[in-house]
Amino acid sequence: MSKIVLSLLVKNSTGVLSRIAGLFSRRGYNIDSLTVGETELDSISRMTVVARGDDAVLEQIEKQLRKQYDVINIRVLPADASVVRELIMVKVGATMETRSQLISICDIFRAKVVDVSEDSMIFELTGNQEKLNAFLNLLSGYKILEVARTGVTGLARGTADQK
Amino acid sequence: MSKIVLSLLVKNSTGVLSRIAGLFSRRGYNIDSLTVGETELDSISRMTVVARGDDAVLEQIEKQLRKQYDVINIRVLPADASVVRELIMVKVGATMETRSQLISICDIFRAKVVDVSEDSMIFELTGNQEKLNAFLNLLSGYKILEVARTGVTGLARGTADQK
Repeated sequence: MSKIVLSLLVKNSTGVLSRIAGLFSRRGYNIDSLTVGETELDSISRMTVVARGDDAVLEQIEKQLRKQYDVINIRVLPADASVVRELIMVKVGATMETRSQLISICDIFRAKVVDVSEDSMIFELTGNQEKLNAFLNLLSGYKILEVARTGVTGLARGTADQK
Repeated sequence: MSKIVLSLLVKNSTGVLSRIAGLFSRRGYNIDSLTVGETELDSISRMTVVARGDDAVLEQIEKQLRKQYDVINIRVLPADASVVRELIMVKVGATMETRSQLISICDIFRAKVVDVSEDSMIFELTGNQEKLNAFLNLLSGYKILEVARTGVTGLARGTADQK
């Protein structure tokens, strides 16, 4: 099983997200993460899909995507030449005793404190999935109340692809 | 037209993303952003949807979502009592002359430089959509090569909802 990160440029048409997501699910492909966001062009969105499967399956995914009318461009983001990031927000129960411990963990990971209440804190952190999972692991000794993750987005390093 | 941020807890079943996205698109609802990510529980994902419409339309959206088998919980995140964030990565063409100008812009927004090549830089920034758009606006005087955005995720402040 290998992991692949696909970066798609797609037309901003009604239902494009549903069609692309449906294409994966109908074939039983395993999506780890899917994000979609605006680009520098009004009519085009960038979709980033992290999928798992053997190489034959992944080749099939690519072929199917290339056939889609909405899909303008597909690029595989190679792990060693891309910057891939996710945003996580974690709400943790906090007392006067645990608040400083939580802030220390936050400092180690360079997470931001974005909310503090009498009995809770919300942390925000960006990084690759391994970093976010390590952060969650450390926090699991405390009372995690809610987790919100965006899923993964990314860009190829440098300008080799633009030339 | 008002904007609504919906936070859904959904079962991790095959095709749930396609079904929820399809529900919006079939009815012609305007989705500004949709993200889906893991939670603290293995079998449950959190989906955050930003939608636009008049109040009657938005009420309809909520009703339709509550009928879905996959949807465990729906919460509207109120603008004044939530932390809502998006991650953006921007690749900008850079020369020896413009590099220091770009780094100044980056400092103002507290963006991170995550890649530098001979003729380009990649910036990473998190914030609400207004902040990200302001950042993009300032960069638009330079050569923007690629933009990747995750879409919005968020949590309600404090613990009023947990009680």
